[in-house]
Amino acid sequence: MTLKNFDLEKYLEGAKRTYGQRQNVEKLADELTKKGFKNIVVLGIGGTWAEWYPVVEYCRHLSDFPIYLENAGEFLVKQNLHYLSKDSLVLTSSATGNTKEILEACKLCINKGINIYGFTKDETTPLAKLLTKAIYNPCGDCEDSYLLYFMLMLRLYKNLGYFPQYDRWADQMKNLHANLVRIREEFEPRAVEIAEKYSKEPYTMLVGSGMLWGETYLFSMCILEEMQWKRTRPVKSADFFHGALELVEKDLPVFLIMGEDEYRPLDERVERFAKRFTDKLEVFDTREFQLTDIDDEFRVIATPMIITAILTERLTAHYELNTGHSLSFRRYYRQFEY
Amino acid sequence: MTLKNFDLEKYLEGAKRTYGQRQNVEKLADELTKKGFKNIVVLGIGGTWAEWYPVVEYCRHLSDFPIYLENAGEFLVKQNLHYLSKDSLVLTSSATGNTKEILEACKLCINKGINIYGFTKDETTPLAKLLTKAIYNPCGDCEDSYLLYFMLMLRLYKNLGYFPQYDRWADQMKNLHANLVRIREEFEPRAVEIAEKYSKEPYTMLVGSGMLWGETYLFSMCILEEMQWKRTRPVKSADFFHGALELVEKDLPVFLIMGEDEYRPLDERVERFAKRFTDKLEVFDTREFQLTDIDDEFRVIATPMIITAILTERLTAHYELNTGHSLSFRRYYRQFEY
Repeated sequence: MTLKNFDLEKYLEGAKRTYGQRQNVEKLADELTKKGFKNIVVLGIGGTWAEWYPVVEYCRHLSDFPIYLENAGEFLVKQNLHYLSKDSLVLTSSATGNTKEILEACKLCINKGINIYGFTKDETTPLAKLLTKAIYNPCGDCEDSYLLYFMLMLRLYKNLGYFPQYDRWADQMKNLHANLVRIREEFEPRAVEIAEKYSKEPYTMLVGSGMLWGETYLFSMCILEEMQWKRTRPVKSADFFHGALELVEKDLPVFLIMGEDEYRPLDERVERFAKRFTDKLEVFDTREFQLTDIDDEFRVIATPMIITAILTERLTAHYELNTGHSLSFRRYYRQFEY
Repeated sequence: MTLKNFDLEKYLEGAKRTYGQRQNVEKLADELTKKGFKNIVVLGIGGTWAEWYPVVEYCRHLSDFPIYLENAGEFLVKQNLHYLSKDSLVLTSSATGNTKEILEACKLCINKGINIYGFTKDETTPLAKLLTKAIYNPCGDCEDSYLLYFMLMLRLYKNLGYFPQYDRWADQMKNLHANLVRIREEFEPRAVEIAEKYSKEPYTMLVGSGMLWGETYLFSMCILEEMQWKRTRPVKSADFFHGALELVEKDLPVFLIMGEDEYRPLDERVERFAKRFTDKLEVFDTREFQLTDIDDEFRVIATPMIITAILTERLTAHYELNTGHSLSFRRYYRQFEY
């Protein structure tokens, strides 16, 4: 099957290059472990915050080792960063390497004598110059960011004694991209259909939870709002029942993003409710997609990667094809100082 | 000035009764301190989560003593509640005392042998029967909930050594309600005007941060969505610049809720931006309202109370007067099992 606006060759090259970073990433993790740290602080904003979200969420399942995910914009003003010290391991990322809040947050750390490590496109970016050590992540595909973030973090957690199955997981990640190509192909007819049906809707409610809250937020904010100028209401499954539900009517589009972690019963409750009261419920359930040569115990880690492949990449491409609204056009974001 | 749909006498009676709880609340706090606890866990959902939000946020400024605010729905499924133990002090609230998730979360704690303390309307509610010890909070006004929550928590923090100014603050809270009546009167002409202008808008973006994020979320979800069936997009000031901004157009209503904590520069950045690109920006800035006989250092604690008085109470009343949509009608919420 041909995937519209998808360059398979380029994708597979990117995949190879990403997986090819494994040694670098593990070496960095091992050095950082050797140095030692008392807690981990992750700085993201917008899309990067959303991508780090499941990584941090997953780590919190492995152990109660203190790990914090901070919105870099808030980090700059917060006065209660009690845990931030020279013993903190600070991680961040910015593909372009020039996200204003990320750069300022890094400088704030540097001024406190705290090292920062992370990911950026290449050695030329402003972020690269601030990082104590960088891993280069040139590819734009979110699943590659997920893979690298998880690789670094899970290697650290292996070293700390909380993820002994790391090597098996990392070995199996060789098979990730082939799965995500097949999953894209399986999803393609639905992407066509959903984009036709919903891409001109003025408002869409998006519901998700747990490991997939980041993707729910990202698809709402960074794709529909930023790249398609579509109004959205991202809402967590548990919150849905405390206000947002009253908006549901026969013709209200509700996109429910369902994962495989312990939050699933909350999502299922939304599904049962929404099925009864709107004809425009679309459920994106990672369980519907097989992962070949990846152990079931690692599926949860892969769920944000599956959702990013089918929504943030595939469905988005078809929205653009239907609306004619270019994904790369912005009227404000990064267009001038504000 | 007459405030529309506002029963001043009833309000002041409620205020008196609430402040009259001071001794009870302090006694409970002192007993709990004597017993001892290693961390504080607060359970809320929907409106109660939003109301506890600034209380917990404020506590985090006073000290790094571990305090957690949990969404009761998520609390029920989460598998990483490492910190929850018999040494935890668990607090909760539900005015009706029959919020499903709160009751289940309490049962979960009870099954683990953990005591729960909190607030509910009176001794007849299902929650009252589950609480180890309850404080009764019969009044519906959010500022009374805030006052009681802060009273309990700040007394605990005084006892822990983190809020030595407690007595002065609590003494001055006698003056709170008179201030909030005057502030209502000052705001009334604007409430009339804004409700006329915006109450029929199909979609409103609401931006806030820090101590006022709870109120921003509450006004969006519990008022506009639940009670007026109006579409909203609540977004934090820092996130606004990473997607939501692209929606802004001349005629997009943006309500910016501005406080006085360290997050204010993030709000001000939104204000500068939104002023340029929409004619429908409304800024609700707590700085515009004086607090008589309350020290400036306590203003930040009062900011959510000011916003709840002018938005959740006053503006809401005028929305109802303009839309004719009853604030007490629900089509789904608590109408049947789901």
